[in-house]
Amino acid sequence: MIMSHLPEAISQLVEELRKLPGIGPKTAQRLAFHLVVSGKDSMNRLVSSLIEARDKIGYCSVCGNLTDVDPCGICQDVRRDPSVICVVAYPKDVLAIERAGAFRGLYHVLHGYIEPLKGIGPEEIRVKELMDRLVSTGREVKEVILATNPDVDGETTALYLAKELKPRNVKVTRLARGLPFGADLDYADEVTLSKSLEARREMT
Amino acid sequence: MIMSHLPEAISQLVEELRKLPGIGPKTAQRLAFHLVVSGKDSMNRLVSSLIEARDKIGYCSVCGNLTDVDPCGICQDVRRDPSVICVVAYPKDVLAIERAGAFRGLYHVLHGYIEPLKGIGPEEIRVKELMDRLVSTGREVKEVILATNPDVDGETTALYLAKELKPRNVKVTRLARGLPFGADLDYADEVTLSKSLEARREMT
Repeated sequence: MIMSHLPEAISQLVEELRKLPGIGPKTAQRLAFHLVVSGKDSMNRLVSSLIEARDKIGYCSVCGNLTDVDPCGICQDVRRDPSVICVVAYPKDVLAIERAGAFRGLYHVLHGYIEPLKGIGPEEIRVKELMDRLVSTGREVKEVILATNPDVDGETTALYLAKELKPRNVKVTRLARGLPFGADLDYADEVTLSKSLEARREMT
Repeated sequence: MIMSHLPEAISQLVEELRKLPGIGPKTAQRLAFHLVVSGKDSMNRLVSSLIEARDKIGYCSVCGNLTDVDPCGICQDVRRDPSVICVVAYPKDVLAIERAGAFRGLYHVLHGYIEPLKGIGPEEIRVKELMDRLVSTGREVKEVILATNPDVDGETTALYLAKELKPRNVKVTRLARGLPFGADLDYADEVTLSKSLEARREMT
């Protein structure tokens, strides 16, 4: 009823935009109106970039990241250290770590978390592919960094992977937990604060 | 540099999404990744709704609102009162007022504000079309509501229109200014507070 006087083509566009993450009904309307008012040229640019992405982007057969070449740019990069594999849940996590610029090894994208309550077990995500990489790569994998989110699903998945990986003679590490940079003690939640006390480090 | 390892097709999509209002670089990346990961079907639905909107939506020749028929659904609606015209700057403002559901007259969309500093005069927006409507419509227009934004450009435009409209024997009104519903006096800005004192109404 809210959109009673919206032309059908606009309300359909609004519906499609609402499916995007973080886009509520009001934002979707604002975006739809902006697009329609902005004219055919800018609509066409958006449409063709969507079609390009749809047709050219797939998953890397090695690491599972989004790519337009296979293996992907990161897997092919000879300057990167193949002895360290950073395991993440989704392609966007690769992007976040690349943005930080502090990692020079390779990635492995699981495409999900182990979520027993939803019936998602290790077979539903790319766990087997990870194990295969440990034996199939020519060069030895010395360390697997478990960079899953610091929440319930991330912990569940990391614990499972750690258990599977340890017998394979590979070092298994987890991203450090603690206070984020620039944080205010006063505003830190209890779990973060107690974890960062627990993991306190001696100053040298 | 942020997107050094993003495939070209994704970074182009990110660039296009960044042009949308309220979408910053991080949101654009999140949206692009979501779209690519969500698969071809949902990409196709978004693409076709964009193409539909691009091809079917135009401006109403009477009121200037976005529409897929001409004149638009509101202008054609015989249940609406043609003796009251509500003047707004943009199509999205029509939507906002329709959402409120408290207006049963017709609209006139100016497609902009008078902004002398940017060289936008009355000729650049749909002022002449408004004046023409006052004489050309069969039925008499009794009231013009100036529903431009309560800011500098909105005031400038409203003052200009009021000056032009008054000699034409039509009642000219402006949306009331005051405290928004649910507001906290403590947080209200000085202008709003003094305007709502100035415009105080006797309780009956």
